[in-house]
Amino acid sequence: MSKGTVVLAYSGGLDTSCILVWLKEEGYDVITYLANIGQEEDFDAAKKKAESLGAKKVFIEDLRAEFVEEFIWPSVQANAIYEDRYLLGTSVARPCIARRQVQIARQQGAQFVSHGATGKGNDQVRFELTCYAMYPEVKVSCEGTEKNHAPVNLYLMTKNPEDTCESPDVLEIHFTKGVPVKVINVKDGQSKDTPLGIFSYLNEIGGRHGVGRIDIVENRFIGMKSRGIYETPGGTILYHAHLDIETFTMDREVRRIKQGLGIKFSEMVYNGFWYSPECDFVRHCIDKSQENVEGKVQLSVFKGQVYILGRESPRSLYNEELVSMDVQGDYDPCDASGFIKINAVRLREHHRLQGEASSNR
Amino acid sequence: MSKGTVVLAYSGGLDTSCILVWLKEEGYDVITYLANIGQEEDFDAAKKKAESLGAKKVFIEDLRAEFVEEFIWPSVQANAIYEDRYLLGTSVARPCIARRQVQIARQQGAQFVSHGATGKGNDQVRFELTCYAMYPEVKVSCEGTEKNHAPVNLYLMTKNPEDTCESPDVLEIHFTKGVPVKVINVKDGQSKDTPLGIFSYLNEIGGRHGVGRIDIVENRFIGMKSRGIYETPGGTILYHAHLDIETFTMDREVRRIKQGLGIKFSEMVYNGFWYSPECDFVRHCIDKSQENVEGKVQLSVFKGQVYILGRESPRSLYNEELVSMDVQGDYDPCDASGFIKINAVRLREHHRLQGEASSNR
Amino acid sequence: MSKGTVVLAYSGGLDTSCILVWLKEEGYDVITYLANIGQEEDFDAAKKKAESLGAKKVFIEDLRAEFVEEFIWPSVQANAIYEDRYLLGTSVARPCIARRQVQIARQQGAQFVSHGATGKGNDQVRFELTCYAMYPEVKVSCEGTEKNHAPVNLYLMTKNPEDTCESPDVLEIHFTKGVPVKVINVKDGQSKDTPLGIFSYLNEIGGRHGVGRIDIVENRFIGMKSRGIYETPGGTILYHAHLDIETFTMDREVRRIKQGLGIKFSEMVYNGFWYSPECDFVRHCIDKSQENVEGKVQLSVFKGQVYILGRESPRSLYNEELVSMDVQGDYDPCDASGFIKINAVRLREHHRLQGEASSNR
Amino acid sequence: MSKGTVVLAYSGGLDTSCILVWLKEEGYDVITYLANIGQEEDFDAAKKKAESLGAKKVFIEDLRAEFVEEFIWPSVQANAIYEDRYLLGTSVARPCIARRQVQIARQQGAQFVSHGATGKGNDQVRFELTCYAMYPEVKVSCEGTEKNHAPVNLYLMTKNPEDTCESPDVLEIHFTKGVPVKVINVKDGQSKDTPLGIFSYLNEIGGRHGVGRIDIVENRFIGMKSRGIYETPGGTILYHAHLDIETFTMDREVRRIKQGLGIKFSEMVYNGFWYSPECDFVRHCIDKSQENVEGKVQLSVFKGQVYILGRESPRSLYNEELVSMDVQGDYDPCDASGFIKINAVRLREHHRLQGEASSNR
Repeated sequence: MSKGTVVLAYSGGLDTSCILVWLKEEGYDVITYLANIGQEEDFDAAKKKAESLGAKKVFIEDLRAEFVEEFIWPSVQANAIYEDRYLLGTSVARPCIARRQVQIARQQGAQFVSHGATGKGNDQVRFELTCYAMYPEVKVSCEGTEKNHAPVNLYLMTKNPEDTCESPDVLEIHFTKGVPVKVINVKDGQSKDTPLGIFSYLNEIGGRHGVGRIDIVENRFIGMKSRGIYETPGGTILYHAHLDIETFTMDREVRRIKQGLGIKFSEMVYNGFWYSPECDFVRHCIDKSQENVEGKVQLSVFKGQVYILGRESPRSLYNEELVSMDVQGDYDPCDASGFIKINAVRLREHHRLQGEASSNR
Repeated sequence: MSKGTVVLAYSGGLDTSCILVWLKEEGYDVITYLANIGQEEDFDAAKKKAESLGAKKVFIEDLRAEFVEEFIWPSVQANAIYEDRYLLGTSVARPCIARRQVQIARQQGAQFVSHGATGKGNDQVRFELTCYAMYPEVKVSCEGTEKNHAPVNLYLMTKNPEDTCESPDVLEIHFTKGVPVKVINVKDGQSKDTPLGIFSYLNEIGGRHGVGRIDIVENRFIGMKSRGIYETPGGTILYHAHLDIETFTMDREVRRIKQGLGIKFSEMVYNGFWYSPECDFVRHCIDKSQENVEGKVQLSVFKGQVYILGRESPRSLYNEELVSMDVQGDYDPCDASGFIKINAVRLREHHRLQGEASSNR
Repeated sequence: MSKGTVVLAYSGGLDTSCILVWLKEEGYDVITYLANIGQEEDFDAAKKKAESLGAKKVFIEDLRAEFVEEFIWPSVQANAIYEDRYLLGTSVARPCIARRQVQIARQQGAQFVSHGATGKGNDQVRFELTCYAMYPEVKVSCEGTEKNHAPVNLYLMTKNPEDTCESPDVLEIHFTKGVPVKVINVKDGQSKDTPLGIFSYLNEIGGRHGVGRIDIVENRFIGMKSRGIYETPGGTILYHAHLDIETFTMDREVRRIKQGLGIKFSEMVYNGFWYSPECDFVRHCIDKSQENVEGKVQLSVFKGQVYILGRESPRSLYNEELVSMDVQGDYDPCDASGFIKINAVRLREHHRLQGEASSNR
Repeated sequence: MSKGTVVLAYSGGLDTSCILVWLKEEGYDVITYLANIGQEEDFDAAKKKAESLGAKKVFIEDLRAEFVEEFIWPSVQANAIYEDRYLLGTSVARPCIARRQVQIARQQGAQFVSHGATGKGNDQVRFELTCYAMYPEVKVSCEGTEKNHAPVNLYLMTKNPEDTCESPDVLEIHFTKGVPVKVINVKDGQSKDTPLGIFSYLNEIGGRHGVGRIDIVENRFIGMKSRGIYETPGGTILYHAHLDIETFTMDREVRRIKQGLGIKFSEMVYNGFWYSPECDFVRHCIDKSQENVEGKVQLSVFKGQVYILGRESPRSLYNEELVSMDVQGDYDPCDASGFIKINAVRLREHHRLQGEASSNR
C-alpha cells in the first residue's frame, strides 16, 4: 500500500532522478513536475525519463507568461536589487515554480512535496517557505543533495562583452504604471508588446551585447557568504530604464520612501518570503507608488553597458522652464537665501554649542 | 572708506569677474580665491585677471590632496550614491572649497564671502550652508547669476565608449579600513600609493575606457527636478571595487545598517550638509563599519564598464569550506529544516487567519 | 479701488484684529474666517467684532466632524507621535483649518490669504504649505506677529492628576480597519458611535482623569528647539488602545514596516506636509495596513494613566494553543534548535574571524 | 566514565532540578550555576539543593553591578523599547547570564551548557545564541521543558497604582554621556551615585508608585504572538528621563538617525542578538550619539505615572532667546517666508501635474 503521494520538482537530471527512484522504493506514489520559465531544457526527454522511472503522472507546465507578469514586473517596479548588485533572477523564479507545485499537490490530493535543492542554499528556503505559506499542512518530503557543480560555460544567455558586435542597439521602452508595455528597436523597427515578448526580446538584445554579467559574493539567508555568478541581460536593461522613468515622474520624497520599501522587498524576495503578509503589503505599496510612472525611455545597449539617451512622459515632473537659469518666472532668488538661512539655524546653534563646550573645558 | 572685505570664490570667468568689479564699485575690498581640486584651469591667467580687476589679494589654493583624502575617501567608504545613480562628484567638492574660503576669510579678517552660484542650483546651498556652519557670523555677499550654459563638449575626462581602445586594462586595488591604499595596473606594473596618485590614476584609466558617464534627471534640494550630465571615471571604478571588498569582509547585518546610513549620507552631502552634526555622526559610524574592510580587488575596465574579476582578503568572511556542497562539516541539514519551519510558523498562522476570515464572510 | 480680497484666519483676538484693520487701511477687502474644531471660543463675539472692524464677510465654519474623521483618525491609524512623545494635536488641526480657508478663497475669488502665526513657529509653515499646495497661485498676505504668551492656566481640558477622582473609568473601544467605531463606558453603560461623539467623549473622560499632559522640548521644522506644553486626553487613550489592537491583529513584519511609515508620517505632519505627495502616499499605505485591525480593547483610565486590561478580535493572530507550553501540537522543539543553530552560523563565523584577526596581529 | 561536563543554568526549582538528575543519570558531570541579577531568590537553599542532587560544583554569581552597567545602561542610552511598549527587562538579562555561564564552562573545561528554557520561548534563543557566539564549539545539552505557569501574584516589584501613596516623589536624575550618574530624592535628600545604587533605588521608588506595569501581546522571534505581563519600574523612570535630556541636548537630525538605530537595537536584543557584530556596531554608534547627553532632569512619580517637571544642561541646544517671540535677534521673518516658498516649489509642481493629468483624462 502506498504511503501517500509526493509531487516532486523534477529536472530530468541525475539528482532528482535518484530522488524519484528512492521515493518509489520507500513506498510513495510520485508525480513529477517540471516548470518552464524560459530556461533551455529538453522537456520531452525529461518527461520520458520520469515515466520510465515510474512517475505516476508527469506535469510539464509553461509558466513563462505568468512568471514575467506576476513576478518579474513587480520586481521591475521595485527596482529590486539585493545588496546593491544582484537583480534577483532565481529568487523570483522560485515562488512562481513552487506555487504551481502546491496547486498540483492540492488538486491531485498529494500530502507531500519534494525538491532537489540542498540544505545549504537559498533555494531550499524559498521553495519550502512558499509551500508552507500556501499549503500549511503540506509535508516536505526528503530533500535532495543536488550538487550544483559549476558548469564549464557559466554564462548561457550573454556573450562575452569583448566579443560582442561593434555597433549599439538603440531601444525605446514604454512604461505604464511602472511596467513595460512596449519595446521598439529604433534601428530595425522591431517591436514587442506582450510581457513575455518584451522580456524575451530584452534578454536577446542584452545577451547579444553581453549585458548583465556579475561575479559577486553575496550573503545567504542561512548566514553564509557564497559566491554567485549571474547573468540578467533583460533585467539589467529594465532596471536602468525603469529607474530613469521613475525618477522623471515620481515626486522626490515619495521616491525616497519607495526606495526604502524596494530595499526591503529585495531582501524579502531573496530570503524566500514572496508569499508573506509583509511582502504582500510592500508590493501593494510599491504598486501604488507607480501610478504616474509612465512614459518612454530611449537607451543604447553596447559592450555590456546600458546608456540612457533620453526620456519623455506626459506625467513628467521635470519642468524645463522652472529650472532654467534664464527664466526667473515666479522663482525669487531671495527665497533661496531665506531657505538656506533657515536651514542654517540648526547648524549655527550646533557650532555655538561646540564653541562653548570647547572653551569651557 | 571700505564697507569691509569680501572673499570671493573666483573662477576667472565672466560671471565672477563681473561680481568682482561690482563689489569694488559698491565700496568693498575684494580678496579672490580660486581652489585647485584637480580641474583643468589656467590658474596663472585667473590670478592675473583678478589682479588687473583690482583684487586686493589673490589666493590660489591647491586642495587636491585634502579633497581626495578628506572628502572623496569617506564617500567611497559610504558607497555614496544619490538617487541610485549619481556619485556626488561636485557635491563633495563644494564643502572642501568653501571650507578653505572661510578659513581665508577668518584669517584675513573678512566679514563677507561671495560666490557665483545661482539661486536655482544646489551649489549655492552647499556653499552657503558650509559657510554658515563654519563661520556663523559671516555675511554672504551678493550672489551671482552664473548661467552654466551647457558646453559644446560635455565630457572632459572620459572618451566616448564607442571610441575607446579594444583591450581592457586590468587593475588591482588594495583597501585598508575601506579606503584604497594602492592601485596596480596588472598589464604594465604601474602602481600608485598616495591618495591623490591613486585617484588621479583611476580617473585617467577610467577616462580612457569611457567609464562613468551618466545623463540623468535628479531631484534638487530646492524641490525642482533638473537634468545632470556627469562623468566620474575614477569614482565609478572605486564604487564597484569598494562594494565588492565590503561585501566580502563585512557581516551581513552590519552591512544592512551601514547601507541605510550610506543612503542618508548621500542625501546629506547632496543637499549641502557635509558640515552638520548629523553628517559628522554618520561619517563616524560609517568609518567604524570599515574596520575590517581590507583586501584587494581585481577588476577590468573596458568599453565603459567595470568588471570585478576576483577578490582576496585576510579578513574575509567567505568560508569556502563551509559553503561547499561536498563538505558537510558541522552543518546539519536538519537544522535548515528547523530553521525553515520556524520561519514558516508566522506564515502559516497568517494563512490560517485568512482562511477563517474568508470562510466567515 | 480695492487691491483685492484677502481671506484672513481670524481668531477674534488682538493680533488678528490688528491685521484686519491694517489690511483694510492698505486697501484690501477682508473676509474673515474662523474655524470651529472643538476649541472653547465665543464664536458670536468674534463674528460681531469682525463685522464691527469692517470685514466684508464673516465665515464661522464648523469643521469638528471632518477634523476627527479626516485628520485625527488617520493619525490614530498611524500611531502618530513626534519625537516619541508629542501626539500632534495642533499639527493636525492646521491643514484642516487652512484647507477650508483656501476653499473659501477660491469660491470668493480672493487672491490672498492671511493669518496671525509668527515667523518662528511651526504653524506658519503648516498654514502656508497647505495654502500653496492646494491653491498654488495664492499670495500669502502679511503675516502676523502673534505672541502666544503662555496663559495662566496652561491646561484647559485636563485636570491635575493629583486632583482627579479616586476610582477609574473602564472603557471598551471597538475598532474597525484601525479606527474607533464605538466606545462604551463599562460602569454606566454610556456609549458613543459617531467619530465626533467618540472623540469628544474620550476627551471628556481623559480630561477628568488628567490623562495626556506633557511638558517637552521639541525640535521645530525651522531648526530651533522650543518648549511645548500639551494636553491630548482623548488622543492619548486612543494611542494606547490602537497600539494594542494593532499588535494583536497585525503580522509582526507588516507592523515593523508600518512602524517606520508611522514615524515618517508624524514628521511630515509635524512639519506641515499633510498635503504633499509623500503624505498622501504614506497615508494610503498605512490605511492598507489597517485592513485587519479590528476588535475591542478594554482599558481603565485613572490618575493620568491608561491601563490596557484586555483585548478581543475576530481577526486576532494570537493563538493561545500554539503558544501554550502544555500543548505541543505540531510544533517540534527540534525545529527551534535548528532555527537557532542556523541563526548562529553567522555569529560563529564572525567569532572565528575575530579570533584569527587577533591571533595574527 | 563521564561523558563530559555540563554547566547547567540552575534555578533551584523543579524543572532544572529534574534536568540535573537526568544529566547525572545519563553519565555527565554537572556544574550548576545560578546568577544573581537582583531577583528575589534564596541562593543558599538553591546551593544546598544542587549539592544534595549531586552537582560537582556550584557557582552562585553576583552579576548585579555588571548587569546594570553593561546591559541596562546601553539600553537606556538607546531608549530601547520593543514594539513601542516593552522595555526589554528579561531580554537584556539573558546575555548577561549566559556570558558568565560560558566563561565558567571555558574555565572549567566543560564542553556542554544546559538550561531550562523551553523551545517555544524567546529565552531559549537568547541563551543559545549567546553561547554559540561566545563559545562557538560549545554543545547545548538537553533543553528543558520549563512551564512558566503564571504565578498567583504576577507583579512582584510594583504596587497596584490604585493602592499607592497619595503624594508624589520628586526625583532629580543626573546624566553624563547618556547614562545616569546620580539620583536625588528632592523630598528627603536621599541620593545614590553608583550604577547599582541608582537602578535599585529607582526600582524601589517606581515600585512604590506602581510605575511600569504592562499587559501586552508581543511578537516572539519564533513567529508566534504571546502575552506578556511585565513590570519595569526603574526602567520606566529612566526611559522618560533619558528621552527628555536627550531631546534637550541632541541635534534634531542626529536624533532622528539615532532613533532608527534604537529601534533596530531593541529588535536585536529582543531576538537574542546582543552578542552579534550588528549589535556591537549599533551600540558603538548609539554610544557615540550620547556624547553631549548631559544634564539633569526633574520628575515626579505618582500613581503609576512619571511626569517630567523640567531639565537643565550645560550642553543644551535649547536657546530661549532665539525661540522667543519678543526678541527678533538675528532671525529675519523674511527668511521663513523664503524657506516656506522653496519647500512649496515641489508641492506646487505636484499640484500642477495633477491638474494637467485630470484635465487630460
